[in-house]
Amino acid sequence: MSSSLPALSTTPRTRLGRMKKRGTPDRAVLDEILAAGFLCHLGVVVDGYPMVVPTVYGVTQDTLYLHGSVASPSLGGDAEVCVTVAHLDGIVVARSVFEHGINYRSAMIFGVPRQVTDPDEKLLGLRCLVEHIIPGQWDYARQPNRKELAASTLLALSLEEASVKVRTGPPDDGESPDAALGHWAGVVPARLVFDEPVRDPLLAGLDLPVPPHIRRLS
Amino acid sequence: MSSSLPALSTTPRTRLGRMKKRGTPDRAVLDEILAAGFLCHLGVVVDGYPMVVPTVYGVTQDTLYLHGSVASPSLGGDAEVCVTVAHLDGIVVARSVFEHGINYRSAMIFGVPRQVTDPDEKLLGLRCLVEHIIPGQWDYARQPNRKELAASTLLALSLEEASVKVRTGPPDDGESPDAALGHWAGVVPARLVFDEPVRDPLLAGLDLPVPPHIRRLS
Repeated sequence: MSSSLPALSTTPRTRLGRMKKRGTPDRAVLDEILAAGFLCHLGVVVDGYPMVVPTVYGVTQDTLYLHGSVASPSLGGDAEVCVTVAHLDGIVVARSVFEHGINYRSAMIFGVPRQVTDPDEKLLGLRCLVEHIIPGQWDYARQPNRKELAASTLLALSLEEASVKVRTGPPDDGESPDAALGHWAGVVPARLVFDEPVRDPLLAGLDLPVPPHIRRLS
Repeated sequence: MSSSLPALSTTPRTRLGRMKKRGTPDRAVLDEILAAGFLCHLGVVVDGYPMVVPTVYGVTQDTLYLHGSVASPSLGGDAEVCVTVAHLDGIVVARSVFEHGINYRSAMIFGVPRQVTDPDEKLLGLRCLVEHIIPGQWDYARQPNRKELAASTLLALSLEEASVKVRTGPPDDGESPDAALGHWAGVVPARLVFDEPVRDPLLAGLDLPVPPHIRRLS
């Protein structure tokens, strides 16, 4: 999957200061982390202060799209952002408190997002956002009309400057003196699940089964 | 639960610019969002750029504790941070693309974190972190020794300046002209689950069942 893709860039921001061993330059890992996520956390600087806003996103081969409105009014002009996508994969239960931690996959993307103004790219970006969350929904739902398209603020962020970090596996104190304590140790795996879809009560009376592309989420 | 707690503060940062109707001044909602979370996203400004780092946390009545090392070297002195905890509760499937969204609960806490230096408070804070994730684990695992305690960098952030946002319920276009399209609409609920604990392979040969307080997570 990654053979034709470039390695991730190395800039002062993406060169990992801490836990270098967890960093990986593999572009396929970035793609996998972004594909598996539903919420990203958008970091912006507002009046000198950091602000972190959770929001949905979509991706193409080289661009991450997100709604601009979530960050307004802070994102006019050429403001730098950091978009982080993180998955909690498990709780690492060690023998000693000091070695506890989590298994995770996380990606950070840095850059100055571009405000999307071209209507065709706006449609493409919104399609990305919707299809990222519910594949098949763009063709099923009513697509944006001209007025809605004009009202949508969309930001495009290049995936060029990105870093990823991953931790997997058991705790690190299995061969330390603490192993002699005889404590249970291991990992409690975690994952996000979707449950049975819940109909809008306003559909009452309509004989309308859950479409297959929505049912597939659960 | 909230009767004896103060309402959340209102500062320029926590006064909601967008979607005011989703804001709530209820302190109990903040507590519930923080209690239900495992990962927070810590926003800091590094050389003028935003950086968003996922990390674990713990809470007391008035303070959020987190590992300082995740943000080093950016968090010396009196740097402002924003800590965001967000739960994805469901995907809101509307008739029109424009009305799609998510159900969520999110909290943002702003302030200048304090580096914890007092050994007693450090123990309390680390206990908070561990017990937040695995209640009962502090007394089960080996607690930090003096050397480990000295090596732990812990930050304390007051919960004083915080805001919360919540969206629940079905999509908003059930009474719009789009309802006549006859599309399925509703919510696909989402939640984080923990699976069966996985033993550290280095426990092989030991007859050691999963302790009840760890089993309770799944």
